[in-house]
Amino acid sequence: MEIDQLETPVVVVDVERLEANIRRLQVYLDEHGIANWPHIKTHKIPWIAQQQIAAGAAGITCQKIGEAEIMARAGMEKIFLPYNILGAAKLSRLMKLAQQIELSVTADSAVTIDGLSAAAREHNLALPVLVEFDTGLSRCGVPTPEQAADLARRIEATPNLVFDGLMTYPVNPQTDIFVREVKGLLSNDGIAVRRVSVGGTPQMWQAHQHPDVTEYRAGMYVYGDRYTLRSGAMQLEQVAFSLIATVVSRPTPERGILDAGSKSLSSDLMGLEGHGLILEYPQARIYHLSEEHGHVDFSDCPQRPVIGERVTVIPNHCCSVTNLFNQVVAVRQGRVETVWSVAARGAVQ
Amino acid sequence: MEIDQLETPVVVVDVERLEANIRRLQVYLDEHGIANWPHIKTHKIPWIAQQQIAAGAAGITCQKIGEAEIMARAGMEKIFLPYNILGAAKLSRLMKLAQQIELSVTADSAVTIDGLSAAAREHNLALPVLVEFDTGLSRCGVPTPEQAADLARRIEATPNLVFDGLMTYPVNPQTDIFVREVKGLLSNDGIAVRRVSVGGTPQMWQAHQHPDVTEYRAGMYVYGDRYTLRSGAMQLEQVAFSLIATVVSRPTPERGILDAGSKSLSSDLMGLEGHGLILEYPQARIYHLSEEHGHVDFSDCPQRPVIGERVTVIPNHCCSVTNLFNQVVAVRQGRVETVWSVAARGAVQ
Repeated sequence: MEIDQLETPVVVVDVERLEANIRRLQVYLDEHGIANWPHIKTHKIPWIAQQQIAAGAAGITCQKIGEAEIMARAGMEKIFLPYNILGAAKLSRLMKLAQQIELSVTADSAVTIDGLSAAAREHNLALPVLVEFDTGLSRCGVPTPEQAADLARRIEATPNLVFDGLMTYPVNPQTDIFVREVKGLLSNDGIAVRRVSVGGTPQMWQAHQHPDVTEYRAGMYVYGDRYTLRSGAMQLEQVAFSLIATVVSRPTPERGILDAGSKSLSSDLMGLEGHGLILEYPQARIYHLSEEHGHVDFSDCPQRPVIGERVTVIPNHCCSVTNLFNQVVAVRQGRVETVWSVAARGAVQ
Repeated sequence: MEIDQLETPVVVVDVERLEANIRRLQVYLDEHGIANWPHIKTHKIPWIAQQQIAAGAAGITCQKIGEAEIMARAGMEKIFLPYNILGAAKLSRLMKLAQQIELSVTADSAVTIDGLSAAAREHNLALPVLVEFDTGLSRCGVPTPEQAADLARRIEATPNLVFDGLMTYPVNPQTDIFVREVKGLLSNDGIAVRRVSVGGTPQMWQAHQHPDVTEYRAGMYVYGDRYTLRSGAMQLEQVAFSLIATVVSRPTPERGILDAGSKSLSSDLMGLEGHGLILEYPQARIYHLSEEHGHVDFSDCPQRPVIGERVTVIPNHCCSVTNLFNQVVAVRQGRVETVWSVAARGAVQ
């Protein structure tokens, strides 16, 4: 089938670009001796995870137990789940998974550690736990090296948990200072920081500038999007992910309406102006999204589309768009190769 | 099962409130002789559509062919699809549907009308088409009464199409002026405007103030959300839709992190500040969303949550949240009654 025959809106992935993106980061991380733990939240597709492993990734990163369960069923043997897992039901699922594969998690509080400890004891497991720290994002993560060291000691003192290292997102100069301070604090206790896991596609080519980093989690690098383009980490000809839409209305000479709205492109702005880049009309501005309509201003375009015309949109944020589609279409050299189910989409957290 | 046992993040629908919301709008529209065509894009659940019909709705409104196909399979016999349907594949699906149920669509251009006409001729159908007009939203819809009248004449002159009336969203004072002008223009041609379809939950209680309106499409009124609350069309004790999340981190005295981010709450702001109302902590501000984390500032709260605590969030926009979940949980008097599949979620456009 040709791309032109696909019904819109549809997400299309260029498989050759995808494969090149997977290789490129792997080669770079291999060169610098950094283990690759790609984040599958971006694609949620087992086949792509398998390609990442085949290319040399040490394991994969998931953001939800549901994603990890689906990836484990698809043959993934090493999964990092950098999330505070809390509550009896989730801890039970986590332990079941830890019995099947090589699983590690994170914690940023005594509450999380104590929950993991009780569950691991009950299941007679030795669960590796990394301490999450914050270096500016203000999300999860302890804010001081002292707190990180305290949690590391607490993990190490717990029979069924193993302190495995430190985790943060994204990576920046503060990361190095923080890690060195924690290492200093823990050296007196004889506690080693085996893993230092950082992530982020925008910063991926600077990973080697952080001497303590042992592993890297990047997600968007497989696809690319408008946010990744703006960061400079990828070029337009490397972007493997696009959404094809149809112009369904041209109510005025300037305005065009696409059949892709917030339920296709998501409302994620990521600090950008507008909701996507239209490749055929790069001066166009997708200035508003209704649920199933994209509102476009074509004022600055020397040529403008007619009703029924198809356009190719690079979305702001590929991770959120993936999460809105049950399937994405894989194309190779302009022809449809296969249709992938976004298997881990909508998985229970 | 009790609500407390559900794994988070989870969307919970209070069935008694839902039923009351369905009744309340139906009673109001019945009183004023306005036909009710509720928009199922909000819930995408056949059972709820069936309740809307059972309560007295004339038919349902869908926004995508995929939604209409699923609702037709669930027994819906009258569906309004207010969208410009273009392209061979979609027109073929549309005609198949029009052979099974009473279907009407909209058009705002000659291109759309000609496509519908060719497809209807091929299938030997008489398809009812309404002309979409714009009264300020600047989405689809012709901007002038003259253009609307021209399209009405074009539809009426086409053997396999039937001009059925006018459609817009939302409804406002301009709507009345526009409709009267079109009626005036068409009266010389002996063309009647049978249906005047308008919509919008925020304006629903003013429907009777628009004398030409014959039918109403509201979507969010079944659930309610933070946007609907702000509009004044619903009160907090009527909102049937909430998301239960868990506090997974408390990195600082002020900050709390929920296990619900943009992949659960969506990034839709709808002109509001923040990303949801936390019922237990109404002064809290969900000031940022990562994909699987909600960032909350509890500074203004006299009491603050502990790690592992569950909170109830009224999202900004229920339609977008529905679209992110495969299932929602129906509760009655605090107990889980059933789990609904969001059947039309992710349906092909």
